[in-house]
Amino acid sequence: MVNPRRVHFYFDFISPYAYLAFPEVLKLCEVHQREMIPVPVVLGAILSHHGHLGPAEIPAKRLYTFKHVLRLAHDRGRPLTPPPGHPFNSLLALRMCLAEQDTEARIKLVGKLFTATWGPKAPGVTEPLVLERLAAEIGLEGGRLLERATSVDVKTALRETTAEAIAAGAFGVPSMAVDGELFWGVDSLAHLDRFLRGADPIDAAAMQRWQEIPALIQRKRP
Amino acid sequence: MVNPRRVHFYFDFISPYAYLAFPEVLKLCEVHQREMIPVPVVLGAILSHHGHLGPAEIPAKRLYTFKHVLRLAHDRGRPLTPPPGHPFNSLLALRMCLAEQDTEARIKLVGKLFTATWGPKAPGVTEPLVLERLAAEIGLEGGRLLERATSVDVKTALRETTAEAIAAGAFGVPSMAVDGELFWGVDSLAHLDRFLRGADPIDAAAMQRWQEIPALIQRKRP
Repeated sequence: MVNPRRVHFYFDFISPYAYLAFPEVLKLCEVHQREMIPVPVVLGAILSHHGHLGPAEIPAKRLYTFKHVLRLAHDRGRPLTPPPGHPFNSLLALRMCLAEQDTEARIKLVGKLFTATWGPKAPGVTEPLVLERLAAEIGLEGGRLLERATSVDVKTALRETTAEAIAAGAFGVPSMAVDGELFWGVDSLAHLDRFLRGADPIDAAAMQRWQEIPALIQRKRP
Repeated sequence: MVNPRRVHFYFDFISPYAYLAFPEVLKLCEVHQREMIPVPVVLGAILSHHGHLGPAEIPAKRLYTFKHVLRLAHDRGRPLTPPPGHPFNSLLALRMCLAEQDTEARIKLVGKLFTATWGPKAPGVTEPLVLERLAAEIGLEGGRLLERATSVDVKTALRETTAEAIAAGAFGVPSMAVDGELFWGVDSLAHLDRFLRGADPIDAAAMQRWQEIPALIQRKRP
């Protein structure tokens, strides 16, 4: 269940868009006095649920996405460098974040691991020893977190957060769930800001009409 | 072949993002003294080529996309209303635009048909009689264009423009091809503007590194 005063930030380290969005959503939450909860999810499982492909899974889109995120990072004056490999297995890093129950500590850990993925000279977040060291660098007990990360409970919890994101309407990351509304991607952050100001222009009657328009053709699913 | 001084605007009427982008790309081309060529393509064929799904083909994303484009339209102070049905068969409208060889006339026709799709009280662009009337309203010979639109030549030409877009790297619409570079979507228009000013921050050496990073995992294709 999503607490109505909270903004759930659904992310996977695999997404450079999530890396770019993370500090900006954090800042929006500060400005609008909302609590931000970073919620690790498995992007691949969300895509599989929808029978969808991620941007890195279509060669032309993979190349474009790299350029796009470099341009977006440049717009923001933020560093963005490729991790040692991509896509990579982010499960352990995600579970480690989920194992950290304290929100403030989790926010620090998520920020640290995002930088370790997409920041300058990024070591990546696939190696247990690297993860342990990164956690220790911000004063967390990396060994304890890693141990918890491999427990059945935390593995189950990651499946549950992924299902929660899907139930909230997510089809990709980053997705921000707040007050029953979902925002997706870096290009929705200005809209999220406006929503948090109470000025979202979406009108329920208009949406109803949109939802009712019939599909006149259907393409064969690939 | 894409003429280097031109900006090719690859579009399908089915895309509300293309509707929003069209006048903005036109304006960018005026500002940067480029010629804009609207090039009709079949979005479904581009998606099929990549084994990809469009935003309207995933229920959660379809609903989100409607909200997203309404918010983007609101940002721009532009009307956006649902067509009689969606998705719809846009082939005849696309072929009609391709049948118009004069660039200035084609730009007028494309603008007219976009408004007839996504503007207030939109009649849609699936009915031949409606298409004929809309063309006549802007001083074109609708009957002649419709006749040409159903010719084998124009049907072939639409397959060729679609293949040209794919060859240019397109995986969706709107896509803007210029000087060997491709920009995709409404959220790339500021980047296109910067590119046309000669200030694109993409650095070839950095891109080379990005292209060389290995994929460490591969998801089963849905």
